[in-house]
Amino acid sequence: MISAEQFKKIRAVISDIDGVLTDGTVGYGLEDFVKFFNYRDGHWLKMAKRHGYIVGLISGRSSAANRKRAGELGLDFCKEDIHNKLTAFEEILAEYNLKPEECLYVGDDIIDAPVMSRVGIAIAVADAVPALDEFADWRLQTPGGRGVFVEILDRLFRESGIMDEVLERYRK
Amino acid sequence: MISAEQFKKIRAVISDIDGVLTDGTVGYGLEDFVKFFNYRDGHWLKMAKRHGYIVGLISGRSSAANRKRAGELGLDFCKEDIHNKLTAFEEILAEYNLKPEECLYVGDDIIDAPVMSRVGIAIAVADAVPALDEFADWRLQTPGGRGVFVEILDRLFRESGIMDEVLERYRK
Amino acid sequence: MISAEQFKKIRAVISDIDGVLTDGTVGYGLEDFVKFFNYRDGHWLKMAKRHGYIVGLISGRSSAANRKRAGELGLDFCKEDIHNKLTAFEEILAEYNLKPEECLYVGDDIIDAPVMSRVGIAIAVADAVPALDEFADWRLQTPGGRGVFVEILDRLFRESGIMDEVLERYRK
Amino acid sequence: MISAEQFKKIRAVISDIDGVLTDGTVGYGLEDFVKFFNYRDGHWLKMAKRHGYIVGLISGRSSAANRKRAGELGLDFCKEDIHNKLTAFEEILAEYNLKPEECLYVGDDIIDAPVMSRVGIAIAVADAVPALDEFADWRLQTPGGRGVFVEILDRLFRESGIMDEVLERYRK
Repeated sequence: MISAEQFKKIRAVISDIDGVLTDGTVGYGLEDFVKFFNYRDGHWLKMAKRHGYIVGLISGRSSAANRKRAGELGLDFCKEDIHNKLTAFEEILAEYNLKPEECLYVGDDIIDAPVMSRVGIAIAVADAVPALDEFADWRLQTPGGRGVFVEILDRLFRESGIMDEVLERYRK
Repeated sequence: MISAEQFKKIRAVISDIDGVLTDGTVGYGLEDFVKFFNYRDGHWLKMAKRHGYIVGLISGRSSAANRKRAGELGLDFCKEDIHNKLTAFEEILAEYNLKPEECLYVGDDIIDAPVMSRVGIAIAVADAVPALDEFADWRLQTPGGRGVFVEILDRLFRESGIMDEVLERYRK
Repeated sequence: MISAEQFKKIRAVISDIDGVLTDGTVGYGLEDFVKFFNYRDGHWLKMAKRHGYIVGLISGRSSAANRKRAGELGLDFCKEDIHNKLTAFEEILAEYNLKPEECLYVGDDIIDAPVMSRVGIAIAVADAVPALDEFADWRLQTPGGRGVFVEILDRLFRESGIMDEVLERYRK
Repeated sequence: MISAEQFKKIRAVISDIDGVLTDGTVGYGLEDFVKFFNYRDGHWLKMAKRHGYIVGLISGRSSAANRKRAGELGLDFCKEDIHNKLTAFEEILAEYNLKPEECLYVGDDIIDAPVMSRVGIAIAVADAVPALDEFADWRLQTPGGRGVFVEILDRLFRESGIMDEVLERYRK
């Protein structure tokens, strides 16, 4: 159970890339790696930014596909090739003047556990490894790559009381 | 509940592209974006055209993949790069001499809400964002990219009383 | 209900390509169309050939991907660009000296209906269009591209009493 | 029922590639074959190696995609183009000084049956062919390409009593 109080404290939405914004698979056999990203995730992450959240990504890997996708979304940061995600997370706290409880983090594998142990709301995608249950506050219904940020941000906006403000421009 | 009356009024079948004709994902890492379209959607949209419906697409994005697919299907229109879908929709009404209640529209994300508020039958794909429920008359069983127009047109043809005419050529 | 008798009569396994050997989707945005075929289908179709069945494909389309895949499988025939599948089927009957009741056919869309009305066993994949129910003897549990021929041939081999012969080489 | 005893004996994790590390599909239509591998599988196979297991692959096929993926994972062996998997398996036993009961093997099709009849723990992926049930000790919940080694190794590590050691570095 995550309280509305916890959701209202959130100022930053931080996420792993592979397995969260993608389904965790990568295409081999071409000149470069191919990964599939979901437009709905992109749209909702932009909506989070528009409504004042800090939004960024931390990945243990580096690829042209990730950089291109992150660039399009206009995120606050995209840290690649991060072998110690906890250190990277501490740097982000300092750089953006954030407290851990003001951060939400989404992961899919055990390498995400140390950051998940630190943040205010730790989220595992539906198909995250079972060992993450020890570290996650919330296991989603949505698997990686199928629009996990729609599920996350729909709840974050509602619990924080800003959903009406978010939907206003679409109600005409 | 959509009445048979509402279905019988429909003269135009209009749809978003990404997330409806595709599963909402896009492949990154190659020279251009890769998207997967479904042959069954294509076949049924052509059947709708053959039986007198106006058929067209409205997309907030622009891509070679979308244009190629739309071109093959021989649709009445394919409007790309549309930042205000409602304005585009109003232009379509004028251009094709249509009333809003004669139009069916299919979407997957909140950006489709304004058009969905206007049309006779507003449809959300199975994996559309939850916030669309406020605007949709019908949430499909079929997710985007898996042949949503088979589900839509099967019902439209039956409710409009033309299914026998549609199937006639295949019954021999 | 298909009787063991009907299965025992089968001498030819004939199938549509798109939506049966694939999931019905095609990748756009590259120099050529990309389609995904399943190795298990390929392996089981080769097993059918090895055990004396005539095996072939009929497609309404033509593509390098289809030809490459069909070539690898060493099938008896692969008829492409077929606008009247029933005519093509009648030619196959003549060429291979087959009776309709000796043929099994697998399809996914309404265009397959005329051949399905003619053959001994007419099969629809799990995600075939609902309108095919009128023409199919059997709707599979397996959707297109996920190994439909494993489900089909497992049953064909068992009902025809040759499963032990098929498995013998794997039992060591 | 596989006993904890059986799990504790395992020293080598051996697997087929196509249909286990992938979903069994291959992309046609480009200059080379495209296959999708899952990062979670890769990560957990590396974890198995780090904790002292011998880890390797045996494939009936050969492809640049397979070699590239296997190379990245730093596995003990990757045997390609193997027409008799049982012979290849016997060679591995000799080369690594392994007993059959010290090996776990994962497959998806009937061609994997002979090796599965020999090993200590024979595993079929969720979407393996039904005919493998005669040869498998365990049918997974996870289909090929969706992280089967997460399910396998999570259980192997727990039953062997090393899960705490595995998770230690992530508990900070």
